Amino acid sequence: MTTTLAVHYTAARTLTTGPAETEPPGPGEVELAPAFVGICGTDLHIFHGDMDARVKAPAVIGHEMSGRVVRVGPGVEGFAPGDPVTVMPLRWDGTCPACLRGHSHVCQNLDFIGIDSPGAMQQRWTVPASTLDSPGAMQQRWTVPASTLVRLPESLPLDRAALVEPTAVAVHDVGRAGVREGERVVVVGGGPVGVLIALVAQAAGGEVRVVELSAHRRRLAEQLGLSTWDPAAADVATLVNDWTGDAGADVAFEVSGAEAGVQTAVDALAVRGRLCLVAIHPRPRQVNLHRFFWRELTLVGARLYDRGDFETAVRLVADGTIPADELISKVVPLADAPSAFEALEGGGDVMKVLVDCGNVSSSEGAA
Amino acid sequence: MTTTLAVHYTAARTLTTGPAETEPPGPGEVELAPAFVGICGTDLHIFHGDMDARVKAPAVIGHEMSGRVVRVGPGVEGFAPGDPVTVMPLRWDGTCPACLRGHSHVCQNLDFIGIDSPGAMQQRWTVPASTLDSPGAMQQRWTVPASTLVRLPESLPLDRAALVEPTAVAVHDVGRAGVREGERVVVVGGGPVGVLIALVAQAAGGEVRVVELSAHRRRLAEQLGLSTWDPAAADVATLVNDWTGDAGADVAFEVSGAEAGVQTAVDALAVRGRLCLVAIHPRPRQVNLHRFFWRELTLVGARLYDRGDFETAVRLVADGTIPADELISKVVPLADAPSAFEALEGGGDVMKVLVDCGNVSSSEGAA
Repeated sequence: MTTTLAVHYTAARTLTTGPAETEPPGPGEVELAPAFVGICGTDLHIFHGDMDARVKAPAVIGHEMSGRVVRVGPGVEGFAPGDPVTVMPLRWDGTCPACLRGHSHVCQNLDFIGIDSPGAMQQRWTVPASTLDSPGAMQQRWTVPASTLVRLPESLPLDRAALVEPTAVAVHDVGRAGVREGERVVVVGGGPVGVLIALVAQAAGGEVRVVELSAHRRRLAEQLGLSTWDPAAADVATLVNDWTGDAGADVAFEVSGAEAGVQTAVDALAVRGRLCLVAIHPRPRQVNLHRFFWRELTLVGARLYDRGDFETAVRLVADGTIPADELISKVVPLADAPSAFEALEGGGDVMKVLVDCGNVSSSEGAA
Repeated sequence: MTTTLAVHYTAARTLTTGPAETEPPGPGEVELAPAFVGICGTDLHIFHGDMDARVKAPAVIGHEMSGRVVRVGPGVEGFAPGDPVTVMPLRWDGTCPACLRGHSHVCQNLDFIGIDSPGAMQQRWTVPASTLDSPGAMQQRWTVPASTLVRLPESLPLDRAALVEPTAVAVHDVGRAGVREGERVVVVGGGPVGVLIALVAQAAGGEVRVVELSAHRRRLAEQLGLSTWDPAAADVATLVNDWTGDAGADVAFEVSGAEAGVQTAVDALAVRGRLCLVAIHPRPRQVNLHRFFWRELTLVGARLYDRGDFETAVRLVADGTIPADELISKVVPLADAPSAFEALEGGGDVMKVLVDCGNVSSSEGAA
């Protein structure tokens, strides 16, 4: 048994950095040394206590990561100590109707590693004890099923590689929306996911506008070469009509999570336009269904990613299509993760904050 | 100039049968003798005064029709007096963004003949005087652009042929939803359009359940061989789960126009299920967007039809896939149309009511 450091969620608005114990990896498992772990919007929801139904405290959280293989368990092939990897943190049961139809990434009993309580999952899964003790990535040793590993190129600095998971989300969303060359795309919400969607949609040939209330986020998006609109300064529907010769946008992404964002996205769309719903709306929203009817619009829900999305995301981060280093606002050591969460509660003024797990020399970070 | 009878909408809840004058058809026009005209839900909305923004009184209404060619105007080829036809009552401008992208059936300046005020359209269209005086089908002579004609087989009784237009709506909806062989389909709303959708979806290989509150409509749907559920008697989501082994339905059609109907349809769907929105929801509705995200559902708006849908509808009515005679509850003469509208305001107890324009011998009706 090895004792290392981990960030534990113990109760609403309470994170502590303290020791965690790691057993050697079991059959089919791999022990990783996480290098960098991104703090995601979902992690903030957990921190707020909004997801206590899924997260059983005390729990190690975190799922946007990069790292290296430390040890492989019995029966694991294709990976060796030192290999740079990221993790697609999903486990599916393979037997539910969604899995049987090939949609295992939204398995009806999905285990999202780093969020879902292993206790709850135990009823459905044979979960090795080592995994039970360490559900999330924000720690110095993390044991995961080998099936979740995604190989990283040696040339990709590990801090940038921590952006692969949110980029995979964006790749999935752009794929669900089916963005094609030359299409006009409106992204409502310019946080990390919105900006990644805008960049991936642009790489797919779309002409993109990002709608974002925060001046800081608009500025950052513009520094990345994106065009932005301030919905408080002008009517977005009018801007869209001027931009598209009264046609409307081909695609809109709802990434704001706000009812007003849904309305902006619906009002932006052309006849037969597609709205990709990315944000989580915990409560039902007023939706202008008449416009869906009148313009024959399509709404497409998009959740998570599959392995293909991850592999595309690795390529886009590695080739610089996603300027990951410009998206990283700050890197904090493991011990400072709790205060970083508190600072992020304020919102707006940062894009992506990474936790450095203290496993890599500085030369392995930003190259 | 010929003087014949027509049903005029003059003000909210006021229809009168009286004389109308017809000019000879102009270039590209055809004069028809309507045989039967169905009373549609939209006609009832007009009757209620809900559509006065589009319908300029006094106006002849009606657009679900069958009939024969009387005269053809200069330059019309391919049609001759006596030909049995129905009308696809749409005119598009051919120049708006929707038309330029091939979606002319939802042209941004669409003229729905029999609904939209020719006065309003005059600003955009060159409308011959004869058409201006006679926008809808509920009359003894009706002049329409030859481009709207859809040929009917001689063997198809003209009363059944009046069901082609609403069947084309159903064909379009089932096409938009992409119903495939073996899929489970829930139709929320068992009025005329819901029943037609159920029959067309069944013909496409779907296994169908119709959700309908009215006992009379459920009984009629069952007489047509459809399975029905009463949403007041049991929880539809539970019924769907039992029916599909907890998977959910592949496709749902929202044909009720009620917020509760939207909820029923969304709750019925499997992972990656498709909701086809058919009904008109004049006001925004509360929609469970979280389920769209969580299950990666798709919502597809469906409006009207194109020529291919009409041609398929002619075939389905002619070959008996749509048992049109069983759907016709009542046929009333032109003079009784006003009282038929009043009776229909009560709702539930009839499926489709036809107006007999008095242009055909009884042997041309139900064969």
